[in-house]
Amino acid sequence: MSSFEAGYEVEWGDCDEAGIVFYPNYFYWLDSTFQKFLRARELGQRQLMAQYGAVTPLVDVGLKFRSPVRYDQAIRILAEIDEWGERKFRICYRIFNAETLVAEGHEQRAWAIMVDGILKGAAIPEDFRRRME
Amino acid sequence: MSSFEAGYEVEWGDCDEAGIVFYPNYFYWLDSTFQKFLRARELGQRQLMAQYGAVTPLVDVGLKFRSPVRYDQAIRILAEIDEWGERKFRICYRIFNAETLVAEGHEQRAWAIMVDGILKGAAIPEDFRRRME
Amino acid sequence: MSSFEAGYEVEWGDCDEAGIVFYPNYFYWLDSTFQKFLRARELGQRQLMAQYGAVTPLVDVGLKFRSPVRYDQAIRILAEIDEWGERKFRICYRIFNAETLVAEGHEQRAWAIMVDGILKGAAIPEDFRRRME
Amino acid sequence: MSSFEAGYEVEWGDCDEAGIVFYPNYFYWLDSTFQKFLRARELGQRQLMAQYGAVTPLVDVGLKFRSPVRYDQAIRILAEIDEWGERKFRICYRIFNAETLVAEGHEQRAWAIMVDGILKGAAIPEDFRRRME
Repeated sequence: MSSFEAGYEVEWGDCDEAGIVFYPNYFYWLDSTFQKFLRARELGQRQLMAQYGAVTPLVDVGLKFRSPVRYDQAIRILAEIDEWGERKFRICYRIFNAETLVAEGHEQRAWAIMVDGILKGAAIPEDFRRRME
Repeated sequence: MSSFEAGYEVEWGDCDEAGIVFYPNYFYWLDSTFQKFLRARELGQRQLMAQYGAVTPLVDVGLKFRSPVRYDQAIRILAEIDEWGERKFRICYRIFNAETLVAEGHEQRAWAIMVDGILKGAAIPEDFRRRME
Repeated sequence: MSSFEAGYEVEWGDCDEAGIVFYPNYFYWLDSTFQKFLRARELGQRQLMAQYGAVTPLVDVGLKFRSPVRYDQAIRILAEIDEWGERKFRICYRIFNAETLVAEGHEQRAWAIMVDGILKGAAIPEDFRRRME
Repeated sequence: MSSFEAGYEVEWGDCDEAGIVFYPNYFYWLDSTFQKFLRARELGQRQLMAQYGAVTPLVDVGLKFRSPVRYDQAIRILAEIDEWGERKFRICYRIFNAETLVAEGHEQRAWAIMVDGILKGAAIPEDFRRRME
């Protein structure tokens, strides 16, 4: 199953004056979760570059917030690749604080390779897709 | 017109190893732009609390990326409030690098007041809306 | 022994275009380590406030860097309180990447309590010191 | 004179639950100020690499805090190169909130060039020093 889970402690520096997570930090955690997901399949940025000459630039990202999180709480992020296009794929994310849904959203990423020093969109290799599934 | 513009220099620390802006930083700039927009109308967080007892928690946020930005470039963010609901409003954002569209997206924010120590959604005061328009 | 250890994975977003940790992030990890150290003794920010009405503002901080750290590596931070003054204490930190010393430094923090709405330095309670030792 | 000044607005997201700047952010501003200082002399990271094949890794950094800064305030950072060694130089920083000294500190940076794919310390070119003075 093309899914992955990562956990994070919410630290003092992650929260704003209202005592809740400053929202851009959620995107740091989404990106970190995607990177950990890749590494768990031995497909970190270094391997993507070495094996495919590819990077996975973000095309579209969004989050809907359901419930705030405070300092000293912990979150779990569930990532699942729920759409495979020819040149793009989508990761859907759900963020939980214990059993409470905190936020849900997605990242859509493109497959891009260097052609003459410029990044160009390209077809996702079957091999990458199979290893992520 | 309910719009505002702010500019930012992209710093070394804003970029990742690929040499482009690490995307969560765009949300820091969106939030900063919203806060500057409020302050330009003398409605910063302190005044919102003092005058209305209110905060404006984020409900939904998204960005679509069109073009990368690199260290040493500068961006302008145009914010415009394009939807006023009874209890929510939406700010649409367009980010430019010179004349190139970098990203476009939105923040939807709720109006919330403290009732018995708990944040509750509430109707947006006419006065706030008029001052932001 | 008044010491504590915490581990962190270095994420893609923690590094700059040179492919090494952007240095302000080390201070996020120092502060996080101090906060975890407090929480491990059941003395997180909430308890400090509830039990002593106190906060521990930073007075002085420094780091000397020995060796760079890259994306996909992991660091361990060893914290040790090595000086107890009447109103200040010092935490010394050593950061390791496997067996390699990455950086070493310190935070000096004051004990401060609210007096008429203003933070004032105060004597560190014996009880706090004992619980941290 | 080898000095430079930069200004920053303190944003909502820069502050912690205590309502003051979360301290690692000061180091983001120090680094940004150094980078702006370089760029003001047409010696940004790209030019350093193109003209000298060099980078300026941080060796030692420290800050002493005098006074807190809150959301909605603005700071000015004064940078001055106050020590030139053969292979290292030091930038001293003073941070002000209006006329109030907020913090003072330094960054010590090395001059390093790529030799066979590895960064090695090297003598600071006279030309670089002259252009920064």
